[in-house]
Amino acid sequence: MIIQLEKNITDIQRATLEAKLNAIQYKTAEVSTQYSEYIVGVGKKEFDIRSIGTMPGIRDIHRVSDAYKLVSKKWRVEDTIIELGDGLKIGGGHFEIMAGPCSIESEEQIETTIEHLVKNGVRIMRGGVYKPRSSPYSFRGLGIDGLKLWHQKSREAGIKIITEVMMTDQIDDMLEYVDIFQVGARNSQNFNLLDALGKIDRPVMLKRGISGTIDELLQSAEYIFSNGNERILLCERGIRTYEKAYRNCMDINAIAMLKEKTHLPVIADPSHGIGVRRFVESVALAGVMVGADGVIFEAHQCPEKAFSDGQQTLNFDEADALFTKLRKTFAFKQNL
Amino acid sequence: MIIQLEKNITDIQRATLEAKLNAIQYKTAEVSTQYSEYIVGVGKKEFDIRSIGTMPGIRDIHRVSDAYKLVSKKWRVEDTIIELGDGLKIGGGHFEIMAGPCSIESEEQIETTIEHLVKNGVRIMRGGVYKPRSSPYSFRGLGIDGLKLWHQKSREAGIKIITEVMMTDQIDDMLEYVDIFQVGARNSQNFNLLDALGKIDRPVMLKRGISGTIDELLQSAEYIFSNGNERILLCERGIRTYEKAYRNCMDINAIAMLKEKTHLPVIADPSHGIGVRRFVESVALAGVMVGADGVIFEAHQCPEKAFSDGQQTLNFDEADALFTKLRKTFAFKQNL
Amino acid sequence: MIIQLEKNITDIQRATLEAKLNAIQYKTAEVSTQYSEYIVGVGKKEFDIRSIGTMPGIRDIHRVSDAYKLVSKKWRVEDTIIELGDGLKIGGGHFEIMAGPCSIESEEQIETTIEHLVKNGVRIMRGGVYKPRSSPYSFRGLGIDGLKLWHQKSREAGIKIITEVMMTDQIDDMLEYVDIFQVGARNSQNFNLLDALGKIDRPVMLKRGISGTIDELLQSAEYIFSNGNERILLCERGIRTYEKAYRNCMDINAIAMLKEKTHLPVIADPSHGIGVRRFVESVALAGVMVGADGVIFEAHQCPEKAFSDGQQTLNFDEADALFTKLRKTFAFKQNL
Amino acid sequence: MIIQLEKNITDIQRATLEAKLNAIQYKTAEVSTQYSEYIVGVGKKEFDIRSIGTMPGIRDIHRVSDAYKLVSKKWRVEDTIIELGDGLKIGGGHFEIMAGPCSIESEEQIETTIEHLVKNGVRIMRGGVYKPRSSPYSFRGLGIDGLKLWHQKSREAGIKIITEVMMTDQIDDMLEYVDIFQVGARNSQNFNLLDALGKIDRPVMLKRGISGTIDELLQSAEYIFSNGNERILLCERGIRTYEKAYRNCMDINAIAMLKEKTHLPVIADPSHGIGVRRFVESVALAGVMVGADGVIFEAHQCPEKAFSDGQQTLNFDEADALFTKLRKTFAFKQNL
Repeated sequence: MIIQLEKNITDIQRATLEAKLNAIQYKTAEVSTQYSEYIVGVGKKEFDIRSIGTMPGIRDIHRVSDAYKLVSKKWRVEDTIIELGDGLKIGGGHFEIMAGPCSIESEEQIETTIEHLVKNGVRIMRGGVYKPRSSPYSFRGLGIDGLKLWHQKSREAGIKIITEVMMTDQIDDMLEYVDIFQVGARNSQNFNLLDALGKIDRPVMLKRGISGTIDELLQSAEYIFSNGNERILLCERGIRTYEKAYRNCMDINAIAMLKEKTHLPVIADPSHGIGVRRFVESVALAGVMVGADGVIFEAHQCPEKAFSDGQQTLNFDEADALFTKLRKTFAFKQNL
Repeated sequence: MIIQLEKNITDIQRATLEAKLNAIQYKTAEVSTQYSEYIVGVGKKEFDIRSIGTMPGIRDIHRVSDAYKLVSKKWRVEDTIIELGDGLKIGGGHFEIMAGPCSIESEEQIETTIEHLVKNGVRIMRGGVYKPRSSPYSFRGLGIDGLKLWHQKSREAGIKIITEVMMTDQIDDMLEYVDIFQVGARNSQNFNLLDALGKIDRPVMLKRGISGTIDELLQSAEYIFSNGNERILLCERGIRTYEKAYRNCMDINAIAMLKEKTHLPVIADPSHGIGVRRFVESVALAGVMVGADGVIFEAHQCPEKAFSDGQQTLNFDEADALFTKLRKTFAFKQNL
Repeated sequence: MIIQLEKNITDIQRATLEAKLNAIQYKTAEVSTQYSEYIVGVGKKEFDIRSIGTMPGIRDIHRVSDAYKLVSKKWRVEDTIIELGDGLKIGGGHFEIMAGPCSIESEEQIETTIEHLVKNGVRIMRGGVYKPRSSPYSFRGLGIDGLKLWHQKSREAGIKIITEVMMTDQIDDMLEYVDIFQVGARNSQNFNLLDALGKIDRPVMLKRGISGTIDELLQSAEYIFSNGNERILLCERGIRTYEKAYRNCMDINAIAMLKEKTHLPVIADPSHGIGVRRFVESVALAGVMVGADGVIFEAHQCPEKAFSDGQQTLNFDEADALFTKLRKTFAFKQNL
Repeated sequence: MIIQLEKNITDIQRATLEAKLNAIQYKTAEVSTQYSEYIVGVGKKEFDIRSIGTMPGIRDIHRVSDAYKLVSKKWRVEDTIIELGDGLKIGGGHFEIMAGPCSIESEEQIETTIEHLVKNGVRIMRGGVYKPRSSPYSFRGLGIDGLKLWHQKSREAGIKIITEVMMTDQIDDMLEYVDIFQVGARNSQNFNLLDALGKIDRPVMLKRGISGTIDELLQSAEYIFSNGNERILLCERGIRTYEKAYRNCMDINAIAMLKEKTHLPVIADPSHGIGVRRFVESVALAGVMVGADGVIFEAHQCPEKAFSDGQQTLNFDEADALFTKLRKTFAFKQNL
């Protein structure tokens, strides 16, 4: 059960509400976000929700039978639009592409990539400065200095930055330079990180775990929302199955179902979703067709020389072709 | 290595070829299909294949490094077109839809379905008369009598029939009444059945196993081809993963990869691919977008009353909408 | 609901029973096995089963809430003992080992293997004469002639034969020479084969599918039982998971659960259960510890020269050590 | 390649070594643990390692072809024994049991559990004070205050504490009160947490990820070791598969393989390994039989009233029986 409070609710009205919920033995959590205040109530007793909905100080009340609450579409039936500034929006009919290298490598690479994105009208650049790597001996990214450099170049060009944050201690330092914080698949149930990202007012793109369920993804989003941040994007990036012919199995079923279960925008990541460069394009298009609100993919001026694994990375010519096809496909789908 | 023989190859030419292959210690299999004769050679010795390619009686020779041979696109680079008669074709740019109930139930149901298909210009009807069921106490289908009735009604209406065959002993009886034999997921490695279907001249649609790999699917197709039947369609119908939110996980990656690995047409089955009715449409469209040459799905005049599980079955209104969208999407993709 | 009939039930008593079941709208299946006659009833109406249990001609009646019925332990609470003749028994405290090569290869190999088994007091030999192979170009086994030769040698030595049957047409020819028919993982839902094996009076060992669920395995066993054959062994042989370090994942959880769900004996197959020779021993011992009634594993006088894949096959010295340890472990477990 | 340095290696000797490694273009990482100093070298050039091994200041050098290095048994062939103080040891023939509740709940619960453990000679108590929960609305544990209370009671009784740490910021506060830090399955690739745990001198038990591979587990252990902490235990706790009959699939294959791949002790967690209370015992025994150096399981004075999910939790009578059987089984295995 979600109760949205009026901005001007009085202390007495709050106390009355609380007493009422206590009386029916509902456990409650108070949620205060950048946009509104809510009470999330969990309990078993059946009662007429209108008896609360009509109380003064209450904007509305909804039952939500899902285990997740605030991210559920059963409560908020309209798609959430994430505003990124400068008129950039994702969700609710607004489609955006995010592209760029696996890792930020150098000033020259940043400039080349930005130039490529600008030329193609792409306004969000992806790239890693903190890289989660299976082996401790692998390159772990340029860190905060790389991010600052990247930010400076991006601002000049009007490009937004999405990059992965790996631990709570990094958030404060990164905040000034990041437009969308990405939570990687390995951290999709790092609940302390989710808590902390819920306490800032900056969009977060949450990747599904390597073998995360759809419900777990939504519960993880609920962590962020219930801590106070409503600006969440979900990302399907392929799941781990028995099949060895590709790296991950792009789960388009999940995209279809997420669009029904939640009001949050869903982004498709075909690069990790299949992990093999020459199939990224068709998987990306399928992702749009099944309902994704955006696509994120890896592109590099020379994938063969990328610092990190370039097997799933498009070169700029391939990326150019994909930009065009993605937009055409989204437009086609909207009119179908 | 695949050697295609000329139709008029002489016995002496054959003997010379055989001697040559023996000399380099290649194990060979002779394959004679409805269209041509081939020698499949497996061996390790490196040699100049032109020394065989230029021999009299030999049409051409190709190396194939895949474990499967005759179904590989490394050998036959052009997409195979399966001709179903009356101008109906699948593959190589020809897109077809197959729709109908899970199980054939009654004369009335057959008639209603055919009428629906005809009205929508759909020319292939699916339906089960032999049903593989987990429980021995479930309805197992109307059998050969149901098939005969269905066939009679279909012929009158110009509709082709695709239906599942479960054992070799059924093939002869069914042959007269079936346009495409379907091999179900549970029989995808029933090698005796594959052998037998390789010995007839009738198209076979082979479903991927419940947790079959892409390679296993192609090897199973190789069974059919190497027994003499080149008319094979492959079908992606979702795989078994850890996710419990849906019934199977539609593997669009597999469709993308199959289109590269083999010259055979690939059919998407969104009904089993997700197993939840209200998502069948978007999954079907994604399947087309990623490269499928056709789509098979379940439709029933009243899914709630279907003999078999109707949870993934569209009603006729939903099916109508999907027919149109599938065709538009295929056309869009061809021009993208 | 399972109703066991008295041997001497009269036609009138039958008719009365039938009328009673019709009255409560239960769908029934009559099952007649080598041991008894049963009526399996499926319906939803609640009623006092004693009203049937006390009817003349009825031995007993049990509710079974599982989807499978006759193989359920909810009905038959005592473990089934499978008698193989000559005093050989499996299940209900009787532990047996089955060992031998992947494929039967030659007279010499048969003799060597039998000699090895006899020396170690092992009384059941495994080996394939019909081999299911992913590729049509692989060795498919010696067939019926190999089986006859093997049978002749085995009878002389007092050794029982377990071997795989792949299709219904093979059953009649094989029947005289086989002590236990094995159904392979790829055929675990080949329902026609299961039906046919239910119509003979010979033990059947049913392997779990490559990604078969525990319930599907029990439903497949129900096929055999409900067709008339109560002599069924179940075999856990590893399942397909995402992990690539081994061939299959031995599912000891399944062994533990099967021992609770069914009265049928459960056999552990560590050779396929891990697929890597040097770990077969410890996996086999774990299988016994978790409750298996028997173990089947691959042994060959020279695994490196085995016709089929020898990567999971023990040599005779390794097999000798395992025979001893398996028996000690079973004895230890029985007394724990 | 791992080079172990002498304690008294001189600066000149170090410089000579470094120059030599540079000359062959090896990337190196310096590792300084509580026990020794190492250089981990990664490169492709073949060379005679004795040319380094015989240099002054070098204790020994080993090639390690695995992706992980310091945790590999290819380098350190003897099993590592983890010393916990007061004579308590795990690994290398020393077997220990860890038991206790899912969550620490109250003083009374702590006392009751400790009394139970002491009576049974169990010296390590498990329990969560920081609980990773899928839903943000679930009980998240008593936190540091619960830990302090628990620690006080445990010290008095001579009981060691193992408990989960979820984020780097918790480590300092917890350090004084924890004998073994547990890294949960969801954090098994939380690389910052692993880095931080590598910088303290306290044993760490690392759980395998929910769908983590054996290699990923070893790489995660490598993070801890390469940061300076050699005292690592690995824990198999079941993996996520398609099977829905149980919660996780206990992967005994992994235990068998880990014992070959690494010198670190391996602990079996049957509670999560199957997730169903009445099967915990037999799964635990199988874990010992396949080679585990210890077992951790959940026990509670009243599982039905446990704060967290008690479906996999034994009551004290069941735990008592299991303590005895585990020790007998370990002894039996050692003598087999």
